[in-house]
Amino acid sequence: MPVLVMKFGGTSVATLDRIRRAAKRVGVEVAKGYDVIVIVSAMSGKTNELVNLVEETSPLFDAREYDAVVSSGENVTAGLMALTLQEMDVPARSWQGWQVPLRTSSAHSAARIEDIPPDNINAKFAEGMRVAVVAGFQGISPEGRITTLGRGGSDTTAVAFAAAFGAERCDIYTDVDGIYTTDPRIADKARKLDRIAFEEMLELASLGAKVLQTRSVELAMRYNVKLRVLSSFEEQSDAAGTLVCSEEEIMESNVVNGIAYSRDEAKMTLVSVADRPGIAAAIFGPLSDAGVNVDMIVQNISEEGRTDMTFSCPTNQVARAEKALQDAKAAGQINYHDLIADTDVAKVSAVGIGMRSQSGVASKMFRTLSDEGINIKVIATSEIKISVLIDRKYMELAVQSLHDAFELEGAA
Amino acid sequence: MPVLVMKFGGTSVATLDRIRRAAKRVGVEVAKGYDVIVIVSAMSGKTNELVNLVEETSPLFDAREYDAVVSSGENVTAGLMALTLQEMDVPARSWQGWQVPLRTSSAHSAARIEDIPPDNINAKFAEGMRVAVVAGFQGISPEGRITTLGRGGSDTTAVAFAAAFGAERCDIYTDVDGIYTTDPRIADKARKLDRIAFEEMLELASLGAKVLQTRSVELAMRYNVKLRVLSSFEEQSDAAGTLVCSEEEIMESNVVNGIAYSRDEAKMTLVSVADRPGIAAAIFGPLSDAGVNVDMIVQNISEEGRTDMTFSCPTNQVARAEKALQDAKAAGQINYHDLIADTDVAKVSAVGIGMRSQSGVASKMFRTLSDEGINIKVIATSEIKISVLIDRKYMELAVQSLHDAFELEGAA
Repeated sequence: MPVLVMKFGGTSVATLDRIRRAAKRVGVEVAKGYDVIVIVSAMSGKTNELVNLVEETSPLFDAREYDAVVSSGENVTAGLMALTLQEMDVPARSWQGWQVPLRTSSAHSAARIEDIPPDNINAKFAEGMRVAVVAGFQGISPEGRITTLGRGGSDTTAVAFAAAFGAERCDIYTDVDGIYTTDPRIADKARKLDRIAFEEMLELASLGAKVLQTRSVELAMRYNVKLRVLSSFEEQSDAAGTLVCSEEEIMESNVVNGIAYSRDEAKMTLVSVADRPGIAAAIFGPLSDAGVNVDMIVQNISEEGRTDMTFSCPTNQVARAEKALQDAKAAGQINYHDLIADTDVAKVSAVGIGMRSQSGVASKMFRTLSDEGINIKVIATSEIKISVLIDRKYMELAVQSLHDAFELEGAA
Repeated sequence: MPVLVMKFGGTSVATLDRIRRAAKRVGVEVAKGYDVIVIVSAMSGKTNELVNLVEETSPLFDAREYDAVVSSGENVTAGLMALTLQEMDVPARSWQGWQVPLRTSSAHSAARIEDIPPDNINAKFAEGMRVAVVAGFQGISPEGRITTLGRGGSDTTAVAFAAAFGAERCDIYTDVDGIYTTDPRIADKARKLDRIAFEEMLELASLGAKVLQTRSVELAMRYNVKLRVLSSFEEQSDAAGTLVCSEEEIMESNVVNGIAYSRDEAKMTLVSVADRPGIAAAIFGPLSDAGVNVDMIVQNISEEGRTDMTFSCPTNQVARAEKALQDAKAAGQINYHDLIADTDVAKVSAVGIGMRSQSGVASKMFRTLSDEGINIKVIATSEIKISVLIDRKYMELAVQSLHDAFELEGAA
């Protein structure tokens, strides 16, 4: 039978009523003749609760124990979803990551999926099971320990299963009815897109649009998985939601298709670094080893052999970054006068495939922000996006004014 | 190095502060030179929360999914305890049941422990790990699914580890400072016992004294594990708490050593059962198959080929028992006029090894209850205990008056 992957995020399984609602939707697809693989997140709020317990216990935690703790929320929802389906007379059972097994690297709390042998689940499908409910976000390392895939990892789990089982489609059910030009909670003029290119989605996701985890989009792009984002709170037609697809399937692209933002960004500056060849590697090597996700990097012009190096990273990695840099300084690998962390910043980005063939996007963005009196602290650009770091208090204003400036409300 | 098993119950790990407190106690034993196996329960309230979710989802739940869901609380505490120990510079890591592996039967939600190969944990001890934190209550079935050992199963986990690793002692840390003559919350004259015989503890545990799970005491008796119950909320000397030990190690036993009660008992009566040889098997076979734990059984005198059959079982198994009996009736295996469930009863029991050599205990018990105007509904006796089923509203009164009647307050 053809296989469909359906993923339900935290808000879609937040209560038993919502789990029942999601299960009904699964039942509809089973009735159509699909064998369904359901990927579930933890009930909304649960993972945060567990992360807080870990961080309070141990600020620089052992990531292996972190994974063992925070993965437990998904196990609960997987079991409850299987029970709910059984109550509806749909043959179902739950699978935890290690039971599948979903094999990953040993990079705890940010593990890469390495392999999903479909044999165990396919054997159950062959026996008449119609739904495999899989706990998202988690896997097992070569050492036999539980790993997690990073926040939002259940999206990646879903796409990986779609690829491994050759699924017809991967439907991501969430609390919004698709991908918007920007976050509707911030700009009420935000408009739903019917289609969006993998590349654009990738930028939006990595820039903080929380609808899909970046890696899930990467994976979908690589394996050409038909990925659909839709709401679990509305009745759905087959054309509902937003289809994330290849560029060729989109008739005409806008110059800018979305405005993204990230609140959880910190700006760190190493003041007066001794500038020499290899200094960037000496700084960012230890940060990478410590698992700090460095995003934007800016180096000032060198004066008298010293320079300032500024970079951004997630706010919750600041302590980790500071420790890594202090250790590197103590070990004589780098030399700097001061280390300043500014956690009151936000990142705002404009994204669009059309940028490739259109000029003037950057200047329009900078002028718009300048007109609003918003100072730009760091700039970073790529082929299809422009990002700026600004004071966090201006974030909403920046998003709204850019959404207006690029006329996203009325765009086709 | 000698091995010590330390088990911390739900109230002992209810908050991060309490986990730290427990970890400090573990640290003391590590400093004495022990390799320690810590068994943890879920944070108090968590397992109930999960059980409620399962029962609300599916009243006649698939026990395999029940186990997958309710075992998750222990995984959280195990990880947090390992992290806390690491913060104290004690080398520790967490183990979930399937990782040890703690192998069990396939009797989901009431699985029997079959094997605990010590190799994996011993290998880590050999590498310098000093504490293995094991999630209690859970194991893995031959089919590779998660099992649980029944409520209170972490005690059994602890004793089984003590046996498997030849531990010097198994300390059960809980919210009381030992075994009492009865529940101090009900009778404020309750007195702590310094020692209690395995057999008495077994009766008290199976009769509803919630300090230790019955099976843990059975197991300790079989493998002669030195079992100590003590409080995690008080400073401890080596002689603290209550030692559960063999009868020979107790100088002189009282006639009655404890009064136990169980609130969660239901009385079920099959009215006018067709009486024939094999009828008891025809009734209790299906109940056993359905996983109903039948406790007391009373059969009335047969009149004109029909009889009433009364039995007790845990309140939360009444629905299950009713279904099993109705199915057996529908299948023509048994025949009865009516099935009456009385869930407003409680069981009160007197326990003591001294009963073996002393007569008059039963009559004293019945007279005491009669003097208080308490009607006895069902009686069951064993060599060292007498149990009665009474209206639940009289339960506290019964416990207090029996505690007085058998002079447990002043006993040595």
